[in-house]
Amino acid sequence: MVPGSLLLPMDEAVVHVKLDNERSYPIQFATIQELPEFLSTSGIRKGKYIIVTDTNVASHYLNPVRDILSGSGWDDLIEILIDPGESSKSPEPLQRIYNEALRSGIDRKTPLFALGGGVIGDLAGYAAATLLRGLPLVHIPTSLMAQVDSSIGGKTGINHPLGKNLIGAFHQPTLVLSDMNLLQSLPELEWVSGLAEVVKHGLIADANFVDELSKNWDHILQREKQSTQRTIMRAAEIKALVVSEDERETSRRAILNFGHTFAHAIERVAGYGQFTHGEAVALGMRAATKVSALINPDLPYAFIDSFLRRLPVRNSIHHLDPGVLTDAMYYDKKVQEGNLHLILLREIGHAYTTSEITEEQILTGWNYLMDL
Amino acid sequence: MVPGSLLLPMDEAVVHVKLDNERSYPIQFATIQELPEFLSTSGIRKGKYIIVTDTNVASHYLNPVRDILSGSGWDDLIEILIDPGESSKSPEPLQRIYNEALRSGIDRKTPLFALGGGVIGDLAGYAAATLLRGLPLVHIPTSLMAQVDSSIGGKTGINHPLGKNLIGAFHQPTLVLSDMNLLQSLPELEWVSGLAEVVKHGLIADANFVDELSKNWDHILQREKQSTQRTIMRAAEIKALVVSEDERETSRRAILNFGHTFAHAIERVAGYGQFTHGEAVALGMRAATKVSALINPDLPYAFIDSFLRRLPVRNSIHHLDPGVLTDAMYYDKKVQEGNLHLILLREIGHAYTTSEITEEQILTGWNYLMDL
Repeated sequence: MVPGSLLLPMDEAVVHVKLDNERSYPIQFATIQELPEFLSTSGIRKGKYIIVTDTNVASHYLNPVRDILSGSGWDDLIEILIDPGESSKSPEPLQRIYNEALRSGIDRKTPLFALGGGVIGDLAGYAAATLLRGLPLVHIPTSLMAQVDSSIGGKTGINHPLGKNLIGAFHQPTLVLSDMNLLQSLPELEWVSGLAEVVKHGLIADANFVDELSKNWDHILQREKQSTQRTIMRAAEIKALVVSEDERETSRRAILNFGHTFAHAIERVAGYGQFTHGEAVALGMRAATKVSALINPDLPYAFIDSFLRRLPVRNSIHHLDPGVLTDAMYYDKKVQEGNLHLILLREIGHAYTTSEITEEQILTGWNYLMDL
Repeated sequence: MVPGSLLLPMDEAVVHVKLDNERSYPIQFATIQELPEFLSTSGIRKGKYIIVTDTNVASHYLNPVRDILSGSGWDDLIEILIDPGESSKSPEPLQRIYNEALRSGIDRKTPLFALGGGVIGDLAGYAAATLLRGLPLVHIPTSLMAQVDSSIGGKTGINHPLGKNLIGAFHQPTLVLSDMNLLQSLPELEWVSGLAEVVKHGLIADANFVDELSKNWDHILQREKQSTQRTIMRAAEIKALVVSEDERETSRRAILNFGHTFAHAIERVAGYGQFTHGEAVALGMRAATKVSALINPDLPYAFIDSFLRRLPVRNSIHHLDPGVLTDAMYYDKKVQEGNLHLILLREIGHAYTTSEITEEQILTGWNYLMDL
């Protein structure tokens, strides 16, 4: 639990995701009290609006958000409540959002607010991408993972029985409002899972940030205010920079998937929901670092591995079969012509994509995890 | 007004849809025999590919297309057959495309070919937009309407019980191959329906083209080869130019919807499938021209109306109620804050959007159609 209030000094607390065609947008590190102001400066039309959220998040934050907005003249809310959990990233909840939104007489300028963590962001974002061929989207992320990762960059989608996020679209938000106070209700496991993505952003792109994380790790684990604030903002900024360079993941953006090809296989084979995404990513990064060290012997493997070990996640996957896990990697969206493309580390702060990887090297990664 | 008149020699029979970020694409007026060559110059990866088509089109053109491609080394076809008709623009056929494509081990570079008319183009285009967040899309339109209109500009989508095309995405193709020979099997009603969109392109953007259409009308109705060829190419070019100016319909592109707000209401109230889209558009343009003349008295109304009357479509909608039809117009995607936005003609070749329209003026349009 986070002690006390985490109100930020708000001077320069904004990061811009820079994109073509006037689609750039701000990530405002602020409080939900400031939402009406940022909506106005982002040119979002006041009036009818949709909030998609899950029942857990709603119990904490739906009334406050609605009250703040209605105090500024936003008085026509279409409220759509979704069951919490990954299983909501599926056709039925999506169809329900379509039905309720369309029945309420929305038009192309009706904004849709995604109030929640990664599942709500992906699901509601995809609904916004596809309703009337695209509604303005506002992310109000309520998990650490969503604040540093999933609310930034426009990836939206739902799952398919054959794999996660196989149905989706790129749809950039118009505004992201990232309020640290909303993380107070976040369970410990969710906090740690979000930290896995924070660590990933450091490892792939910013050695100084890794250094800083390493030094302040205990404070961050304890959600100490100042360290947390710096951490969220820097992690979000790295994501924004990488996305700005390659919005549609034709090349460089793929480095954000460091650890994820292993992670997706773990989630898939263990059964979705057995591990949080962040836990799977933490394990995936350890396997990917192992493989990276095989290929790049100068990589400071011991340092990275001990750093990753400080993420307090469950790590027992020895009940899973390395061969089955390897097969499952081929469902990854980065596979091309049957070739696995893996993200590896050249050094701390420098990741790259390679397709020159042997099955034996991949198995070395899996076997390492088996022995944890 | 659209620049340039078209007299392309057939060896340069190509129109370019110009878009940002290397997303420009050619509309090749050619034969399907040339498909392998254009795929190669468009940078589409040879190998596994998906064809989505309907059973009617398949009986004529699936084998020829497959044979031509396999003769050039395209030998791994995922063939997905859809029932013909508007009712296939719905979640179940979409889900079937998802399932069959994903089961076959596609990746992000696997191209999806939409072989068919407007329904297949919209449905398969939407599947391509949302599978793995976007597959390369190749349109091979087999109806006049698809060749001059729906295959150009990236609008994709499916219907919702509350209205047509309410779920969708913008997804530009990588290549459009428009082969006039594929129109030989087109039923008469489909030909005339396609001509409604041709006429629309002239009325909204090119007075010279209207003049040319008017002079050659009988040849065009008879599908005389040279007139047809010129007509298809110029109509496609107008569409391409308007789309290039405003890809996502934030302003100017809306003029392409001339007649469509009335048309959508007719289709909706009469029941989808009672009129073809083109028939409804022909009627819708007559109503919209009537309203245009109320507001712009200098419009050569008599000429336009008699020109539109030369489209041999069914026009009896007197069994429908003007009030109900007017209400149905409010489901249009161009409605904003409950205000109808209508496309009107200022003069031949010049359309514009207005929200300053009274219900009485709209009823005048409907009542005119009632008396046909």
